[in-house]
Amino acid sequence: MKVQEKIFVNIDRLKNNIIELSNIGKNEHGGIDRMAFTKADYHARLWLLEKFKNIGLKARFDGALNVVGETNSSSKKPAIVVGSHTDTVPNAGALDGALGVLIAMECVQRMVEMDLQMEHPIHVISFSDEEGRFGGMFGSRSFSGLMTPGYLEEASDLDDIKLKDVLKELGHDPYKSLDAARHRDELKYFLELHIEQGPVLDEKRLEIGIVTDITGLFKWQVTLSGTSNHAGTTPMEMRNDAFMGLADFAHEIPRIIDENGSDVSRMTIGKVQLYPGSPNTVPGEVRFSLDVRDVSSDVMHELQNASRKALSAIARRRNLMFDFEELSWIDPVACNKELIETFEKVAKEQRMKYIKMPSGAAHDSQMVSNIAPVGMLFVPSKGGVSHSPHEWTDWKDIEKGANVMLNALIELNS
Amino acid sequence: MKVQEKIFVNIDRLKNNIIELSNIGKNEHGGIDRMAFTKADYHARLWLLEKFKNIGLKARFDGALNVVGETNSSSKKPAIVVGSHTDTVPNAGALDGALGVLIAMECVQRMVEMDLQMEHPIHVISFSDEEGRFGGMFGSRSFSGLMTPGYLEEASDLDDIKLKDVLKELGHDPYKSLDAARHRDELKYFLELHIEQGPVLDEKRLEIGIVTDITGLFKWQVTLSGTSNHAGTTPMEMRNDAFMGLADFAHEIPRIIDENGSDVSRMTIGKVQLYPGSPNTVPGEVRFSLDVRDVSSDVMHELQNASRKALSAIARRRNLMFDFEELSWIDPVACNKELIETFEKVAKEQRMKYIKMPSGAAHDSQMVSNIAPVGMLFVPSKGGVSHSPHEWTDWKDIEKGANVMLNALIELNS
Repeated sequence: MKVQEKIFVNIDRLKNNIIELSNIGKNEHGGIDRMAFTKADYHARLWLLEKFKNIGLKARFDGALNVVGETNSSSKKPAIVVGSHTDTVPNAGALDGALGVLIAMECVQRMVEMDLQMEHPIHVISFSDEEGRFGGMFGSRSFSGLMTPGYLEEASDLDDIKLKDVLKELGHDPYKSLDAARHRDELKYFLELHIEQGPVLDEKRLEIGIVTDITGLFKWQVTLSGTSNHAGTTPMEMRNDAFMGLADFAHEIPRIIDENGSDVSRMTIGKVQLYPGSPNTVPGEVRFSLDVRDVSSDVMHELQNASRKALSAIARRRNLMFDFEELSWIDPVACNKELIETFEKVAKEQRMKYIKMPSGAAHDSQMVSNIAPVGMLFVPSKGGVSHSPHEWTDWKDIEKGANVMLNALIELNS
Repeated sequence: MKVQEKIFVNIDRLKNNIIELSNIGKNEHGGIDRMAFTKADYHARLWLLEKFKNIGLKARFDGALNVVGETNSSSKKPAIVVGSHTDTVPNAGALDGALGVLIAMECVQRMVEMDLQMEHPIHVISFSDEEGRFGGMFGSRSFSGLMTPGYLEEASDLDDIKLKDVLKELGHDPYKSLDAARHRDELKYFLELHIEQGPVLDEKRLEIGIVTDITGLFKWQVTLSGTSNHAGTTPMEMRNDAFMGLADFAHEIPRIIDENGSDVSRMTIGKVQLYPGSPNTVPGEVRFSLDVRDVSSDVMHELQNASRKALSAIARRRNLMFDFEELSWIDPVACNKELIETFEKVAKEQRMKYIKMPSGAAHDSQMVSNIAPVGMLFVPSKGGVSHSPHEWTDWKDIEKGANVMLNALIELNS
């Protein structure tokens, strides 16, 4: 297929779809409650299934309740899959994953109505439970062959409701999720557009982020133990104040990143508990979370070593005990070079202000990278806000993102 | 009265009384539960009342359920009051305030059985609710004329049980507490022996602490507010991390004390809450307690100013908002010079290893200082431990403390 001129999405239709979908699960605060496998989430998936059918796609639920719409194609070549997710966190905004699904649908609808001949079939997909009501990325995990019977038996939400019971209530056999696994030979690429969920594009007044890597991540639960003492009777020099050890470590973070990290390294202390936690007691113990991210697993290892050394030295200096537990380790994922180049070529042709950047958040693409080359596009999040009814992206930026995705799909399919 | 030779307490009798009282309210962990106005506390007070009667004191409950035992005296001179409290925190040790009450009783019993003629009547007292089930120092507050009807109506414990209801259940009219107030003309001195509740005497291998001042104290609840952000998508340089502001302030504490404090200044951050408190969110807000103590109210004001300046500068530098609430301000109390000199004279005569030191904890003496000159003695707390079943003081140190108190009482009464 040769492209003679640029093709654009129908922004009014896309707008209508975004608004229509945002009304499913809307709560009294203007936020959206479409947590995975709730009635609202299921309602949205049925709505999407209808939409897929109406634009002429072969639409179905797969075994993991992912909604899949496939172009009618006699081609035996592997498919280009494009999409994201339509489930939400509680009290969410209208975009997040939904935008990527609706833009994927708009792109394919546009290609169908232009009657562009496609070398590869295109599959539009909305993955289930990306947001993690039952642990996260259930749909893309299943799709990528990473689901296990153990996961299906054990996964439960914060209210101790079991995933398998929720699926059964929807009339769905949980074990069918194992059948959602796709083989790498069936897939050419996976493409995902998502809101950035961070402040970079908005702050720099850019229109498009072309994702180079999806960040890896490790999480520690750290404990520093000293001695609890009376805040009045214990002289400053006789204290083993565990909190002061944490304050020391907080101040080592910039140095640790400068010495061992990259310019996209991130280290966060987000949760802190002091024991006994009484205003008139010197804290004898502090437990805190450490969240460390980078796009290189080598760098992650360096940051891990440096953190261990720093904490160990602080503990010695302050006469504290130091212990940590690694709660998780997720390797970073590099996006496919050819897809990055294609996005860049299209963005340049359309004279868009773009940058290449890492994704600091996790996405379905991370799972799908196990079975297909992945590419991701970001559109700006106003003020960096996400997971909130205040999450928003200007319509013109949504349109630009959609046009890059559409023309990239055409480019890749020619 | 002239003292020809040193007089000593009966340590075996004192030991027996300590052990006997420690069995009232003992729990299955070996700790003691005699929280104010519980059955165990009331039982201990009745036990004490009987003891007072048995050694020939005029014994009674006053209007605040303080147990008072008065020597039979025809003297119209103001009384020397000596004692402490027998209520405990939950799961307490055997000593704390009880030791001071039982030593006071032993001293008076010894003076009575030696038939020493006393110029001033001596009143032994066990104050009620020192530990603060209903706010703290109920008995000494009432005794010192600081009780109010508002306090009586409003005071409640952590389970929202009202003080007035608890007193009524014990068959006691709450408003009688107002009648417990004593006039300054009735009192010559108030003397209190207490365990140190800190590590200083134990660490320095000393036997006696002569208290020069009881520390003043202010408590702040401080809030630093920045912006909550995604820990993955928010670059380090775009964060307004409220927790980092707290870490900065923790590191200013040694400087603030060096520049503005004294060698007995104490500043403690004992309670910290991050919001939202999620491991993968940059904390947008931190609330923490600040407990600041010194024996000079001028120094306390200096520390207050310096803390405000430091927090305000940190907030500007880190682009945070800063707010604080003063939850309490208690002025320090200087112990009476004559009493300090008397304790010192006796300690020297008895060749004791003593120091003069401030009290970092609050005590009933602080309240009584409103109506009488006060003097306090400390005995060592092993390992600085208190408010715990592991709280202890060697019998020989208990004996030494008791002998200093006894001979000081004789000295003051001659």
